[in-house]
Amino acid sequence: MQEISQLHAIFERTSGYINRFMGLIQPVIDAAEDEHTRLYYHHILEEEEQRLDRLKELLPYLQSLSSGKKADGLSDRELSRLLSDVNLERFGLHNFREHLELALYEFQDEETRLDLDRMRATTHEDYLTVKETVAKLSERLSDVSHPSLVDHDEGHDVHQVDHFKVSATAPKGVAAVINRHTDAAPAAQPAPSKKGLTVGSLKGQSM
Amino acid sequence: MQEISQLHAIFERTSGYINRFMGLIQPVIDAAEDEHTRLYYHHILEEEEQRLDRLKELLPYLQSLSSGKKADGLSDRELSRLLSDVNLERFGLHNFREHLELALYEFQDEETRLDLDRMRATTHEDYLTVKETVAKLSERLSDVSHPSLVDHDEGHDVHQVDHFKVSATAPKGVAAVINRHTDAAPAAQPAPSKKGLTVGSLKGQSM
Repeated sequence: MQEISQLHAIFERTSGYINRFMGLIQPVIDAAEDEHTRLYYHHILEEEEQRLDRLKELLPYLQSLSSGKKADGLSDRELSRLLSDVNLERFGLHNFREHLELALYEFQDEETRLDLDRMRATTHEDYLTVKETVAKLSERLSDVSHPSLVDHDEGHDVHQVDHFKVSATAPKGVAAVINRHTDAAPAAQPAPSKKGLTVGSLKGQSM
Repeated sequence: MQEISQLHAIFERTSGYINRFMGLIQPVIDAAEDEHTRLYYHHILEEEEQRLDRLKELLPYLQSLSSGKKADGLSDRELSRLLSDVNLERFGLHNFREHLELALYEFQDEETRLDLDRMRATTHEDYLTVKETVAKLSERLSDVSHPSLVDHDEGHDVHQVDHFKVSATAPKGVAAVINRHTDAAPAAQPAPSKKGLTVGSLKGQSM
């Protein structure tokens, strides 16, 4: 089954992306100067570590199906289980896209930002491909346990926003917002912010 | 099996918590004045919606096992599948605890904060119970597909922090930090922050 090789390639790619993402975020955690920032990025990394662990189990299984040409002979029960696992990773790709978008608000250097945005674009494509594949494989199932393809995205225009563009001029992330103030504010003294925020001026940039 | 009824009770409780949590966070999304804040809370809610959908499938299954006394007769394959599903929800509880902790940094009113903190405490207890149950049920499995009980928490002291305490004096969340500045800063003008941050003074509060 060609779909199985395609899924394998996608989950292999995203595993590599997780490692790259972790390499970018871990230094932010290590440098965090307050518990909120540390918790925020720790939380995101932990979710990606959980995903990586699941992929480490799924990848060899897909590989064995693919190389042994066993995919066509899957029972309904096996196919249902596979679909459920793949569907979970569809959500994983969706959530990873959002982690990448959130990270865009943290980093100021263009190289990192472009890297994050490239991973975001590919992750979105991969997400759409996996969604299609799940729908396609579901049709082969004769029982009723089809995975739900609901996205929870209905009515949310947040996914139509170009976060790369918006984040370029937005205040930089949890860590950056807080750190900027920490730099300027010794202890509990009120201090001027170093840079005015341009939230109001971003309003027109949604697309 | 007593464990099944206990799991059912826990997942029923956490489903109720998700709804309460969504009721608290949705207004923050609706009132968000910038795309970063909107994306941040949208992302958290979306993950909880995904969890709620999974629980809506798992709960009736647990119920049927519990009421039909079918749990003792599960085959290895069925038990393995059940354990895998429950283990995923163990991570779900862990991540929800962190969502609740992150939300503590958003809200200033004591009633909401106490509600979040109570949910956090119970969620943590539920998480530990589910972890124990998964370990216990795993022992009954004769095959090798035991779920991984790894937590990714090793070496992270972030879970030892009393976020209720720290957040009481910390800058208030993504939305609050940004909104506070938006209030004070028309367009792109530099403006003084309304309140000095106390990040430095929080350092001693980790426990």
